[in-house]
Amino acid sequence: MEIINSIESFRLARRKIHLDQSLGFVPTMGYLHEGHLSLINQASQENDKVVVSIFVNPTQFGEGEDFGEYPRDFNKDHELLQHTGCDIVFYPPTKEIYPPSDNIDTFVVPQKRATMLEGKIRPDHFKGVTTVVTKLLNIVLPTTTYLGQKDGQQVAIIKKMVRDLNFMTKIVVVPTKRDHDGLALSSRNTYLNSSNRQKAPIIYKALKSADHLYQIGETNSDILKNTIRSMLTELDIEYVSVADSDTLEELTHAKPGAMISVAVRLGNTRLIDNIILGQGS
Amino acid sequence: MEIINSIESFRLARRKIHLDQSLGFVPTMGYLHEGHLSLINQASQENDKVVVSIFVNPTQFGEGEDFGEYPRDFNKDHELLQHTGCDIVFYPPTKEIYPPSDNIDTFVVPQKRATMLEGKIRPDHFKGVTTVVTKLLNIVLPTTTYLGQKDGQQVAIIKKMVRDLNFMTKIVVVPTKRDHDGLALSSRNTYLNSSNRQKAPIIYKALKSADHLYQIGETNSDILKNTIRSMLTELDIEYVSVADSDTLEELTHAKPGAMISVAVRLGNTRLIDNIILGQGS
Repeated sequence: MEIINSIESFRLARRKIHLDQSLGFVPTMGYLHEGHLSLINQASQENDKVVVSIFVNPTQFGEGEDFGEYPRDFNKDHELLQHTGCDIVFYPPTKEIYPPSDNIDTFVVPQKRATMLEGKIRPDHFKGVTTVVTKLLNIVLPTTTYLGQKDGQQVAIIKKMVRDLNFMTKIVVVPTKRDHDGLALSSRNTYLNSSNRQKAPIIYKALKSADHLYQIGETNSDILKNTIRSMLTELDIEYVSVADSDTLEELTHAKPGAMISVAVRLGNTRLIDNIILGQGS
Repeated sequence: MEIINSIESFRLARRKIHLDQSLGFVPTMGYLHEGHLSLINQASQENDKVVVSIFVNPTQFGEGEDFGEYPRDFNKDHELLQHTGCDIVFYPPTKEIYPPSDNIDTFVVPQKRATMLEGKIRPDHFKGVTTVVTKLLNIVLPTTTYLGQKDGQQVAIIKKMVRDLNFMTKIVVVPTKRDHDGLALSSRNTYLNSSNRQKAPIIYKALKSADHLYQIGETNSDILKNTIRSMLTELDIEYVSVADSDTLEELTHAKPGAMISVAVRLGNTRLIDNIILGQGS
């Protein structure tokens, strides 16, 4: 496994791989957990070569958000990656991606989809995500990119970006990995104190209850959302949504493939989770 | 020479070319003239393969602009291209680039540079340009892209976009081709009636006079701009600018590499032109 820190070195390595070969790409912000590893495993089963990027992207954090505190541990990540099928780790310093001498003046801007859900609370977040993912896709030139369903809105926005801007890559979405008690794995779970960690599994239980109601015939979104709200009274709810998983538009009636998503605050920690109806994930 | 109309077919052709080979790309809106041909000639001298795209991009035309009337003549373009080193003509229909069933929701948006010069008069023009050029670059995956200096602000914005978003391509800028009387070649020259066509060469003469003044020691931008204005009294001037050719910021004092640019209206036709100081073009 090779570690590459510069764009120029990466491009040299990329030129040795023919465009006819399959190259799987897993973009991450590091502090890897089983969720990331499941993406990497699937990528290595399905591709000739696998690239994992580790980059904590400053432009997707708003003012007052956790860019500074976001957990980082490259040595542990490196150790974990050695037991996977990863061929190249792309691990650039911030100044390689955003050169301080050449202030960025071009952004990739998602429109409608970025105004929904997370977009209401984190207004420039997705513009930062699509811009850095564009940069990474242009450097890595993958044939398939693997994303976690955990960030359901990000999935919708990046899928749409790939269609809109004709990136060569296909997008594969991998189901959310969960802890034994159902809590969706996230690098940010490390922020939870033990009391909040004990409360957190109710999020997935609430989503599953709504899914169950839907399975036995309830399609009214208000009823599904109220069921979730009634189970999360101990948490600080930011939103509960039943939306089309492509357009992210709110649905008055749930349908197969719709995304039920939730954002809550537990202490100072924001947690998001979602399920896709009819997929049991 | 092959004509390809679909993205999927183009991708198949692209996969046969190794990433180690050089691929020159000339994006055009068709109605080709000697200016385009000089870009294509340079591309074919410098690359293993050459792709020319012909696509009149609707998203870079504002409301009330000339999208409908923009001149098109594919048969003539095809004929001209057969006498060049072009290997593939990418000539997609509009619906291939903007599928009507999947409304575009992601744009590539240049910021500061797009607010200057043309940006003041054509507010969403460059957003349309960078979005379609991103699409084309993602489809064609060129190693070098050739642009004409004629569209000087476009050159600055696309160069910056390529740096900001880490496109693999290099950008090569080709000097403006001019008619025998100095008028910069442009597909839009076809709009000029004969009386306005006779007036138009004064634009380049005015630019050359400012250049001459600069060569003999005058660096005060106001004096250079007033010289130009005084020569263009018969035309309807939209702007005269002395700007940094990368940042497009106005300069109070001209310097080598600065861009002097002009936009005028002659009847219903907008004409733009520019020179770079110290390059004699």
